Amino acid sequence: MCFAGVRDAHALLMNGAPAGDGVVRAITAVEDDPAYCSVGYGGLPDREGRVMTDAAFMDGAGLRMGAVMSAEGIKNPILAARLLCGRETNCLLAGHGAERFALENGLEMRSMLTDPSRARWLDALAEGRKKLTAYTGHDTVCVLALDREGRMAAGTSTSGLFMKDPGRVGDSPVIGSGFYCDDRYGAAAATGLGEDIMRGCLSYEIVSLMKRGASPRDACREAVEGLSRRKKELGEDGGSFSVIALAPDGRFGAATTLDLFPFAAGNDVSVALYCVDFSPAPVREARPTDLEGVD
Amino acid sequence: MCFAGVRDAHALLMNGAPAGDGVVRAITAVEDDPAYCSVGYGGLPDREGRVMTDAAFMDGAGLRMGAVMSAEGIKNPILAARLLCGRETNCLLAGHGAERFALENGLEMRSMLTDPSRARWLDALAEGRKKLTAYTGHDTVCVLALDREGRMAAGTSTSGLFMKDPGRVGDSPVIGSGFYCDDRYGAAAATGLGEDIMRGCLSYEIVSLMKRGASPRDACREAVEGLSRRKKELGEDGGSFSVIALAPDGRFGAATTLDLFPFAAGNDVSVALYCVDFSPAPVREARPTDLEGVD
Repeated sequence: MCFAGVRDAHALLMNGAPAGDGVVRAITAVEDDPAYCSVGYGGLPDREGRVMTDAAFMDGAGLRMGAVMSAEGIKNPILAARLLCGRETNCLLAGHGAERFALENGLEMRSMLTDPSRARWLDALAEGRKKLTAYTGHDTVCVLALDREGRMAAGTSTSGLFMKDPGRVGDSPVIGSGFYCDDRYGAAAATGLGEDIMRGCLSYEIVSLMKRGASPRDACREAVEGLSRRKKELGEDGGSFSVIALAPDGRFGAATTLDLFPFAAGNDVSVALYCVDFSPAPVREARPTDLEGVD
Repeated sequence: MCFAGVRDAHALLMNGAPAGDGVVRAITAVEDDPAYCSVGYGGLPDREGRVMTDAAFMDGAGLRMGAVMSAEGIKNPILAARLLCGRETNCLLAGHGAERFALENGLEMRSMLTDPSRARWLDALAEGRKKLTAYTGHDTVCVLALDREGRMAAGTSTSGLFMKDPGRVGDSPVIGSGFYCDDRYGAAAATGLGEDIMRGCLSYEIVSLMKRGASPRDACREAVEGLSRRKKELGEDGGSFSVIALAPDGRFGAATTLDLFPFAAGNDVSVALYCVDFSPAPVREARPTDLEGVD
């Protein structure tokens, strides 16, 4: 989803830009492109046909975050999240409060519903699928960045579950679940069924594992396996979620419960697309497909 | 704040009621009493004079949660949260979506603004305190319960920061920050400045420390000290937050950055009020004041 955005962000970071600028650059590229039907403009409507967005930004140096939830009409929710990140209080805003914050701060507003997203909604209504019953896709853009000064940042943006209930919020704007970032230990972010990701506070768990010495790859794998195993013990399926992580030294990792989880990553040299290894293991760890020299 | 509610919940649990019933009983008692000016009916208004509530419920057996955020007019937000906890998706609802869920499920609605809460708001307006600049109080009711079957539950409810911005959400409905509960390892909840509590995902961190063998008391202390220390390293004050924790074997603990943090706890025998020890240590751990035989 975000290869082009990551490539642009990578160029920024190579030129010395702060990590936060890279995160915002990569995410706004996805938010602005209606071809990505689950983020920003042209996003997936809720069951009333409204595109309600969630986004978050976290600064790993200051350990601060900002996020908007269930917000309508903000052209770039990630920009609102980043602005909110500078505040000591009132940094997590829902609904009209988030929209007013965006308006009052001069952020661009627009109708986020495109003809294809409206058509998708009408089709679902015609099929009688008024409530979502299953979910296997991924809908969120998650970006982690490390800059030349060693600063880290994390960001997420999504229109959330297709045909969700009005006001439904997933993991993406929820600190510790959809994202977490601490310069000292690393950053992580998650995508998949938010309701499950939140049960395991997956992103905080991953950063916490890195704090205790795990590589990003092992931390991702252990966190995903732990939650997936618990779900099975509770008589549920193994879940549908994927995670990415970045260490302060630039190593990265990912893990998923799915057959396929593509993601993009760059290092000092270049940017490449990665995807999971199609091994028969129930939880697969990421392997580079066309980039060498990275864990 | 919740001694009477905890006493009633304790009686329920002694009679074999599930942990969740105890949590709901203790919290509704606080929500319904306008004397508690920061929770439920008669809660603290936002800067527009509206009482907007946050509440969450988590079931430690199923590792599921439900929560409402920035919701107006739900008489008992904790009841909405508990109902949402039964869902696989759409279990975290903000704003109008949360209010509609409550209405559609037959929950009682009411104006939550009382004459004293309106007067408090008008006074603040008259003082020109349109934006909150500092915070040292505690506004949330947090309840953790363990029943005779070994099941655990956690709940929180609050009207949030006085004079908060419209749509502001604190840690109380945010899993991992305001609360977390896992039958296997224990439960924790936090109160204080939500924006700071979220930076450390305090409740998940505490349960995670108990998972790795810490007592509830040590887990609370370590989590609070860790975040407080980090804030100081960042040039900030030590913060204003307090936490409680409960282990699957019934031991409990608490810690705070404040001079005083009163809380109520019960065991197989009785219920008692506790409060922090006024030692000169920067972070104080809880000591029983009138109950024996409990860690």
